Amino acid sequence: SRHITEDQIARIERLTNRRAHRWLRRGVFFSHRDLTQLLDLYERGEKFYLYTGRGPSSEALHLGHLLPFHFTQYLQEAFNAPLVVQLTDDEKFLFNDKLTLEETHRLAYANAKDIIACGFDPTKTFIFSDLDYIQHMYPMIVKIQRCVTFNQARGIFGFTDSDNIGRQAFPAVQACPSFPATFPVPLKGSRTMPCLIPCAIDQDAYFRMTRDVAPRLGFKKPSLIHSKFFPPLQGKGGKMSASMASTSIYVSDTAAQIKKKVNKYAFSGGQETLELQRELGANIEVDVPYQYLRFFLEDDERLEQIGRDYKAGKLLSGEVKAILIEVLQELVGTHQARKAAVTDEVLAEFMRVRELDF
Amino acid sequence: SRHITEDQIARIERLTNRRAHRWLRRGVFFSHRDLTQLLDLYERGEKFYLYTGRGPSSEALHLGHLLPFHFTQYLQEAFNAPLVVQLTDDEKFLFNDKLTLEETHRLAYANAKDIIACGFDPTKTFIFSDLDYIQHMYPMIVKIQRCVTFNQARGIFGFTDSDNIGRQAFPAVQACPSFPATFPVPLKGSRTMPCLIPCAIDQDAYFRMTRDVAPRLGFKKPSLIHSKFFPPLQGKGGKMSASMASTSIYVSDTAAQIKKKVNKYAFSGGQETLELQRELGANIEVDVPYQYLRFFLEDDERLEQIGRDYKAGKLLSGEVKAILIEVLQELVGTHQARKAAVTDEVLAEFMRVRELDF
Repeated sequence: SRHITEDQIARIERLTNRRAHRWLRRGVFFSHRDLTQLLDLYERGEKFYLYTGRGPSSEALHLGHLLPFHFTQYLQEAFNAPLVVQLTDDEKFLFNDKLTLEETHRLAYANAKDIIACGFDPTKTFIFSDLDYIQHMYPMIVKIQRCVTFNQARGIFGFTDSDNIGRQAFPAVQACPSFPATFPVPLKGSRTMPCLIPCAIDQDAYFRMTRDVAPRLGFKKPSLIHSKFFPPLQGKGGKMSASMASTSIYVSDTAAQIKKKVNKYAFSGGQETLELQRELGANIEVDVPYQYLRFFLEDDERLEQIGRDYKAGKLLSGEVKAILIEVLQELVGTHQARKAAVTDEVLAEFMRVRELDF
Repeated sequence: SRHITEDQIARIERLTNRRAHRWLRRGVFFSHRDLTQLLDLYERGEKFYLYTGRGPSSEALHLGHLLPFHFTQYLQEAFNAPLVVQLTDDEKFLFNDKLTLEETHRLAYANAKDIIACGFDPTKTFIFSDLDYIQHMYPMIVKIQRCVTFNQARGIFGFTDSDNIGRQAFPAVQACPSFPATFPVPLKGSRTMPCLIPCAIDQDAYFRMTRDVAPRLGFKKPSLIHSKFFPPLQGKGGKMSASMASTSIYVSDTAAQIKKKVNKYAFSGGQETLELQRELGANIEVDVPYQYLRFFLEDDERLEQIGRDYKAGKLLSGEVKAILIEVLQELVGTHQARKAAVTDEVLAEFMRVRELDF
């Protein structure tokens, strides 16, 4: 994969007639495969579709889970692109012996409400559970499976002989939505529509395999755009806590929980005493509150100013935390309000096999 | 697996109130797993269902392909049992790089007409292609897959690292119809109905795996009844011809083709000259025409008489071939007449997801 350049970001702004998403400007979505080719096609008037997904392994999403969805929502709006969202309830069952299939299927629907709350256009977005949509995918899945040996899968994904046989078959399920023929109704029968996949960098292996297979099945290779990882509250260097709740802020957290978690658990790059902080300033590169602001504070100038002041000792840890708490409370509050509007009817419409609008 | 005993055959006759199928009497279906338990349940008034299948890899079935179907048809009638027939179009695609998926799917439908022509009761028989019915099987498939490691699959089926990842996943697809919950509509929601699988002995490996997995998924182990292989025209000891057509008689062969194939290719256990045959008689154990009569001539006494006379040199090879030709022409003629009656509407009804009558 290649780094996204300033030129590419400028080109995206030109093509979409709007400012690039802050996660592009700030290097959160930092690398890509074949993005230039995709933009070339777009510039010539060709439409593309977006594909992203989630493995439904828990009830509530945390802030890191929002990254691909918020960014995809921006791409959908900026490029006016149809979107398919895969919920891999089958995968989570095959990779987690503690979950029942009924539970991962239920979580797929619960998570879909949180995904919809990220602001997707209902006329342009198709969300599906693998268990529900398998009928439409299975022919493509076996075609992909015939192109991949166990040896290759082992090389890419590190499977062992003790893994169950479903795990080895699964990469084909994740590859499948990269090909437009998987969505004859939503994509109106197109077999040539290019695909752009926003995802976290750890998912790249699936799509390297997909890109290898694509030409043998007569499809374009999907383009990719990768994000860095979102750090836990304890920071990249910090230890992950055994108690999940203290390492992450969930979209279901209350304002009070957000305040408490940031104040109590967020790793600080500030000095130990007020005097030292005034004298030496904070290390903003490891400071979690500041890093979180880089993700979620939209205003570039204000972010810069906070960074300068914090480094210079003019701002204290507690003050930066207070800014972050306000930003996150608003973000999560907005999410919760939007999610409350996602009725079962709205959910059913997003998950209905239908023609998308593009 | 265990040999089927005379006592068991007598018990089947008692329970079904009819003579046992000649393939039971003559040891063609020769071994079983848990048949006694199944008959115990049946005797106490519990219903069971039948499951058999076919991998659609060729247009026309040959006589050997008819074995499981003719025998299953007998079982359906004798025990008044519902039946599910799996057409593994996915398997044939994954195991044969020369076939397209569209072709194996088409062959599934072509083969289904031949299967129907074996005389199944349309109110008690559900025939399905894996590609069509996957939606209903997939939840069970992943549950089975989670119970089997690659190591175990390799031990049972001999997969190598060069096999594609779909092949390793497939045993779960073949196992799936052994559990009644796979057919909520056809079997009216039963999760406890016992399953009897008539199959060729080479399929036993799939069902050993299935039987291992069954209790972990809360299901009864399926019972099995196995047939021996049907010999090619060249005989068990004879060389298989590269030209398929000359090794087998197809259900689509004309009366003239049957006559020609039997006369030209059927391995004879008779002596080389008329004089030697009169003097020494035939070796009926290797004589293909006589062996085929053991499969297809219903009349026990006549079969015995032919055997005695042929061994004693009273009958000549050509005469036994002539008897066989007549039997096969009638068998194939009946098949073709029945198949001609299988319209697309009849086919659609057998393949429709619906409640079976039992």
